[in-house]
Amino acid sequence: MTDRPGEFDLIARCFAPLAGTRRVDAFGLTDDAACLVPAPGMDLVLTADALVAGVHFLPDDPPALVARKALRVNLSDLAAKGAKPVAYLLCLALPAEIGGDWVAAFAGGLAADQAEFGIELAGGDTTSTTGPVTIAITAIGEVERGGMLRRSAGRIGDDVWVSGTIGDAALGLQALRSRAVAGGEEAGDAGLIDRYRLPRPRLALGQALAGTGAACMDVSDGLVQDLGHIAGCSGCGAVIDDTAIPFSPAAGAMIARHAALFDVAVSGGDDYELLFALPVAARTAVARASAASGILVTRIGRLVPGAGVDLRSATGALRRLERGGWTHF
Amino acid sequence: MTDRPGEFDLIARCFAPLAGTRRVDAFGLTDDAACLVPAPGMDLVLTADALVAGVHFLPDDPPALVARKALRVNLSDLAAKGAKPVAYLLCLALPAEIGGDWVAAFAGGLAADQAEFGIELAGGDTTSTTGPVTIAITAIGEVERGGMLRRSAGRIGDDVWVSGTIGDAALGLQALRSRAVAGGEEAGDAGLIDRYRLPRPRLALGQALAGTGAACMDVSDGLVQDLGHIAGCSGCGAVIDDTAIPFSPAAGAMIARHAALFDVAVSGGDDYELLFALPVAARTAVARASAASGILVTRIGRLVPGAGVDLRSATGALRRLERGGWTHF
Repeated sequence: MTDRPGEFDLIARCFAPLAGTRRVDAFGLTDDAACLVPAPGMDLVLTADALVAGVHFLPDDPPALVARKALRVNLSDLAAKGAKPVAYLLCLALPAEIGGDWVAAFAGGLAADQAEFGIELAGGDTTSTTGPVTIAITAIGEVERGGMLRRSAGRIGDDVWVSGTIGDAALGLQALRSRAVAGGEEAGDAGLIDRYRLPRPRLALGQALAGTGAACMDVSDGLVQDLGHIAGCSGCGAVIDDTAIPFSPAAGAMIARHAALFDVAVSGGDDYELLFALPVAARTAVARASAASGILVTRIGRLVPGAGVDLRSATGALRRLERGGWTHF
Repeated sequence: MTDRPGEFDLIARCFAPLAGTRRVDAFGLTDDAACLVPAPGMDLVLTADALVAGVHFLPDDPPALVARKALRVNLSDLAAKGAKPVAYLLCLALPAEIGGDWVAAFAGGLAADQAEFGIELAGGDTTSTTGPVTIAITAIGEVERGGMLRRSAGRIGDDVWVSGTIGDAALGLQALRSRAVAGGEEAGDAGLIDRYRLPRPRLALGQALAGTGAACMDVSDGLVQDLGHIAGCSGCGAVIDDTAIPFSPAAGAMIARHAALFDVAVSGGDDYELLFALPVAARTAVARASAASGILVTRIGRLVPGAGVDLRSATGALRRLERGGWTHF
């Protein structure tokens, strides 16, 4: 047993204050459904992602961070499609040991990110479970009619770009695990761990790219595997230049100490950067999108004939990873 | 370990064939998100419900039925708002012991109901879990602008109506449990158990009511508790006439044998009938909606001044249930 309030109290106390009133009317979560009046000339972009304790986050992660991560992995998908966030629905399955304080802190994390990203809660469901905390979120965004970015728009010869830095989250998870084993902590770990816990959805960059027709997705399952998805959907292969991949100073230092961590960085999940392909002629447009959004982008390779993703070393040697990324089973 | 295919194989084999191509384009589930082009003059209705094995269904229930139940509890919410189904998103967390056959049968259930109800899969997520099978569905429907039915539209003096029959699912669950204990089965149980396993979303009736301004919801947590929601949202109370409640012959026979089952029937969950309130002047309109949809409706009581829901016996005595329905904690 727990001191957790009943279902209706929990909804009224923790989640009703998050209910949408502007773009979506969620009626204070007192009705069966919410009402969304679509904006003229806009398409809706729909995505859903679930997080399970012990699989996608650590059971003792702070609940506010868990909530923000759950929301942000969905916002990252909206970013990758060039969409502006509108509303989300939340299904939450809670084991008996989760108390009201945990849920209140979780809702606090959602409130913070609703304010930051301009998205509103449209509805959802809370239920009990005999298993781990399970969070399923559906996010709805909007783009100008026909403007949604697709994975499949790449063409042979396109530049491949990535935002921000790669591998921080995977190395942060590694650092968390080492810390659990050894009790130690190295300089720079905190920033990497923060990247693992709290994705930065690149919404401003995605919206700036929305008009360009870029082939775009977010890097959630590892850079190499995810570029394989863009290449595969576009009917071609890809090459990444090892030396072009943007690493943060902390990640670069870890890789300098342990060379094997390079593969962890380029195949680990949870980057939530945007990965996109555009013709060489679009380099000025990319620079403008980067400047407009204030998000750095780096040209890391090219789409090529063939299939699959090769890594090219400084000497020009090509290499293919055996395991390019994260799968959920 | 299991013989279950990997995440991407599972999606390609079981779920990609369900991906929307008409009202929603889900791109064969190969992209980060789906694109929905809203129909002119229509509002979107958004709802989400989760089902957890051991809480909302029995772990050995047939997977196709589990899938259909998960979809239909959401369709029932759309029905209650007068909406026509458009698309849904599915998050599925699977423990290791669930094999590929289970998932294929589950997807088969979804395919059957997609065909029956004209809804399409827009996207979702599959993940592993150390807990029970967990299914979270977000459903999206559409209504003419401003036409969504609300719980709060009731007024004192309104007739209270309910579709179909009440208590079948709760008594079916009771029968399943007795059978598990005693190994026996009484005549009529099969129909009740089927009602527990497979809700009938009253979409045609809901859509026929959409223009009437009825206060409407679906009965998912028990007739008495759910009427309490309509009354509460509408700022009044309600009275139900015991003798007016529509029971199926099988449910009526069980209640005749065990009078205590009356309270189970009116407070148990999973009816998925529509419960609605309309002024006396609308009786002809209700009859027309019933005839147009082919779904029987019964007038069971009235909205009254005050708060809460009373049951009125044949002698006119009022009684209030201590526990009017199901809560999820």
